[in-house]
Amino acid sequence: MSEPEKIQLAHGGGGRRTRALLDRLFLPAFENPALARRHDSAVLSIVQELSLPQAPGGGSARIAFTTDSFVVSPLFFPGGDIGRLAICGTVNDLAMAGAEPRWLSAGFILEEGLEVALLERIVSSMRAAAREAGVEVVTGDTKVVDRGKGDGAFIATSGIGIVPGGLDISPARVRPGDAILVSGDVGRHGIAILSVREGLIFEGDVTSDVAPLASLASAVLASGAEVHCFRDLTRGGLATALIEIALDGRAAIEVEERDVPVNGAVSGACEILGLDPLYVACEGRFVAFVSEESAGRALAAMRAHPLGQGAARIGSVGSDRPGTVRLHARSGGSRPLDLLSGEQLPRIC
Amino acid sequence: MSEPEKIQLAHGGGGRRTRALLDRLFLPAFENPALARRHDSAVLSIVQELSLPQAPGGGSARIAFTTDSFVVSPLFFPGGDIGRLAICGTVNDLAMAGAEPRWLSAGFILEEGLEVALLERIVSSMRAAAREAGVEVVTGDTKVVDRGKGDGAFIATSGIGIVPGGLDISPARVRPGDAILVSGDVGRHGIAILSVREGLIFEGDVTSDVAPLASLASAVLASGAEVHCFRDLTRGGLATALIEIALDGRAAIEVEERDVPVNGAVSGACEILGLDPLYVACEGRFVAFVSEESAGRALAAMRAHPLGQGAARIGSVGSDRPGTVRLHARSGGSRPLDLLSGEQLPRIC
Repeated sequence: MSEPEKIQLAHGGGGRRTRALLDRLFLPAFENPALARRHDSAVLSIVQELSLPQAPGGGSARIAFTTDSFVVSPLFFPGGDIGRLAICGTVNDLAMAGAEPRWLSAGFILEEGLEVALLERIVSSMRAAAREAGVEVVTGDTKVVDRGKGDGAFIATSGIGIVPGGLDISPARVRPGDAILVSGDVGRHGIAILSVREGLIFEGDVTSDVAPLASLASAVLASGAEVHCFRDLTRGGLATALIEIALDGRAAIEVEERDVPVNGAVSGACEILGLDPLYVACEGRFVAFVSEESAGRALAAMRAHPLGQGAARIGSVGSDRPGTVRLHARSGGSRPLDLLSGEQLPRIC
Repeated sequence: MSEPEKIQLAHGGGGRRTRALLDRLFLPAFENPALARRHDSAVLSIVQELSLPQAPGGGSARIAFTTDSFVVSPLFFPGGDIGRLAICGTVNDLAMAGAEPRWLSAGFILEEGLEVALLERIVSSMRAAAREAGVEVVTGDTKVVDRGKGDGAFIATSGIGIVPGGLDISPARVRPGDAILVSGDVGRHGIAILSVREGLIFEGDVTSDVAPLASLASAVLASGAEVHCFRDLTRGGLATALIEIALDGRAAIEVEERDVPVNGAVSGACEILGLDPLYVACEGRFVAFVSEESAGRALAAMRAHPLGQGAARIGSVGSDRPGTVRLHARSGGSRPLDLLSGEQLPRIC
């Protein structure tokens, strides 16, 4: 008899194995149109449900709904902690659907023996991040597991946001000719976690970029840019986000490696560790796919915002080979980017 | 220096320590009106947020939003499993706010090494429970933690439901003279978990009562009964639910012990184990506080529903000693019921 198939760390890494689990298990089991769109948030039409009249001027009112569980290790890291991460991660998933985040829930799974003072620091960091993002934590739950059956604290947050009438932002809307922007330098969150986890000291300080991105996303929308898709860069970094969009939107993505902003300390750390910064996680960065004509104003709107000062244009959508991402390397030549099949940095969020 | 305060299993037990953590830490940190109502779900008015016109006939449209994390051990037990529990628990929290459950999210925290076949059984059980409850799982997330840092699988579910216009169901509406009904016999879930966890064999089969209660709650509402409060009986059982309502609604609750339905096998098991069935968890039972005049029709509506056949009237709200629950014992005499200060049955949900 063969060994039964088991869950591996890579099933949670956001790469090929995570996608396989989704395709094989979760999507068929819970089959419905919202889930099938594979976006960070489900966008739900609520007007009919509430038996409300349509808003004047058309455009049906919708809410966005999302969830994320956070298992980052360690709980505190340069630039943030699991509490800030839990608020920002859920706020960002809502913002990536074009929604204005409003209400969050928080579920805590605590390990017996966790110091209450640590929990207080985590909760106080959540409170600060929620204020920064303009959201309220309106409901919650606490469970405790026996010592050795958890790891300090896990936090599951869900969120509800309001999607402005008429707005449709998703991989399906990406078109040949779209410009691709990134809101800042990539890879800081992953390297910050790794530095403290492994006790590594890198030249220059690397702090996590974890931040709530709703006001930045809404500044891009308010600029009048024609936005087709937003995606935040979490597990698997920039490369994974682009590959997912290419697959889900049947887009032919072309990226210029030299145009992708990477902080010097991050790039040095990646070199030492043999990591590709394109695959290292961020928690405060996103990509925007906008029409070529609006690339300028979208980029200007990003750069005028404190969280988007390092924004850059990194590529375009072509028409050859839909469903792939092609990297034009700094060294010349080009190669396709692939989903990671293993786990690069476990438990970074 | 004194030992720093640490999280204990009892902080997750739903009793005195859980309440203290909520009062001291979570409520002040996330202060807002929805959270302060301490209901199972936050009820949120959405009409203004969506810039929608009011519905004709008044009554502002609202949604209910709730979350729960599930850490039950073992993952499979007589009558259910963590997947069914995760769907039903969240559906029931919505139903207890008078909402019609619609959309759920599911976040999985899996331990490295979990057999994929087990996960498949859990997900398939979630799918069946979601169908039974008439809800859709529209968004989700999977994280994996290293071996020994989790316990097979934890599941966090959140949910959104629609609250019919004008409906207000909460502890604050409980009034002297209200009749108190319970939807069936109590304590089966806790004893079912304990029997398999401890390898105990009890006389008669004890299977968990885990079930989605939304259609039963809505049958009570549809009967025309004047419902003031619903509360499902989870951690800490019937006694804890009543004490929470007494505290939050400043109600003087009187309960007749002899009228509380307890299955013979549960009562036998409790006797052997030294447990009070009033404090043992259910996952498919709730209490309803209704006006005295509508007690008859509410009870009839419950008994006509497959999940409420064992419903009974168990007491009334008086006016002496608001904020307390008084048990009129089978043996004669009466005594106040208190929140448990320790953990009776850890990880039953």
